[in-house]
Amino acid sequence: MGFGIISIVNRKIKLLCIDELILKKIDSHALKLKKIFEKTLSLIDEYKPDELAIEEPFYGKNVQSMLKLGRAQGVAMAAGLLREIPITEYLPKKVKMSITGNGNASKEQVSGMLKTLLNLKEFPTRYLDASDGLALAVCHYLNSKNNLSSQTASNSYSGWNAFVKNNPNRIK
Amino acid sequence: MGFGIISIVNRKIKLLCIDELILKKIDSHALKLKKIFEKTLSLIDEYKPDELAIEEPFYGKNVQSMLKLGRAQGVAMAAGLLREIPITEYLPKKVKMSITGNGNASKEQVSGMLKTLLNLKEFPTRYLDASDGLALAVCHYLNSKNNLSSQTASNSYSGWNAFVKNNPNRIK
Repeated sequence: MGFGIISIVNRKIKLLCIDELILKKIDSHALKLKKIFEKTLSLIDEYKPDELAIEEPFYGKNVQSMLKLGRAQGVAMAAGLLREIPITEYLPKKVKMSITGNGNASKEQVSGMLKTLLNLKEFPTRYLDASDGLALAVCHYLNSKNNLSSQTASNSYSGWNAFVKNNPNRIK
Repeated sequence: MGFGIISIVNRKIKLLCIDELILKKIDSHALKLKKIFEKTLSLIDEYKPDELAIEEPFYGKNVQSMLKLGRAQGVAMAAGLLREIPITEYLPKKVKMSITGNGNASKEQVSGMLKTLLNLKEFPTRYLDASDGLALAVCHYLNSKNNLSSQTASNSYSGWNAFVKNNPNRIK
């Protein structure tokens, strides 16, 4: 599970955290879900994000792998639901398009563009797999930019229901 | 989302609750997940179950419906993970087999057998859809019977890690 956390200050994107949760060594499906849930909850409690973005997977190898992916996303989403943080989904193509202008961009093109957008000296190679998570965060910022800039600075996040009401198209 | 809650006293199964959460009227996938998470958590906090059982879906219409089902199960499982309650999965065939002795039993055969096992005068028709949830609870009891009866009465549930250690085959 790759993830990236950013903050926006004066319309500049600042990287707070990029990492991945390694689950390969855990055999038990249930324990993997537990780790994902706990990790997501601890990240939320540490960084207190206003919004979450996740990938909307478009296809899977088979229905069983999609069920497992769905459960993994479900427990991560539950951590957001528990803390009442709105969640937005993006198709992989939309993420690539938002960041590079090309829906079929390679991983390297995406991380290259992230490096520029986040003003990093170098994109850490060991985090290449985690870059999907960071790309989602940046994609979400780019797609909610207009929405955010039209709010006053004091207009803080006012809860899930208000978010749903104000953003009927952003949640399916 | 159908669910059933039972208690076991002197090896007799007692029905505590059978009901279903109606989600058809909610369009938003995210709000459905929120309702499932909240309902499961409130049921857990009200009834304080020692264990949870869920269905292990075997097939789905397509990968997208399986992703949604996986997420729905994921948020429900997260409620269990949050309260540290072990979760066991059963294939639909296994549930039918455990209750009726026939892996291909009809819904009516399953609810008929549940009526007998739970000593109910009548199986409430309006809960026919919720009977899958109750069937899972009873199936879990029937499959953990030997395990439970070999424990002393003072041997209470000692947490997820102990459960995993003691039941390596019950969780994937």
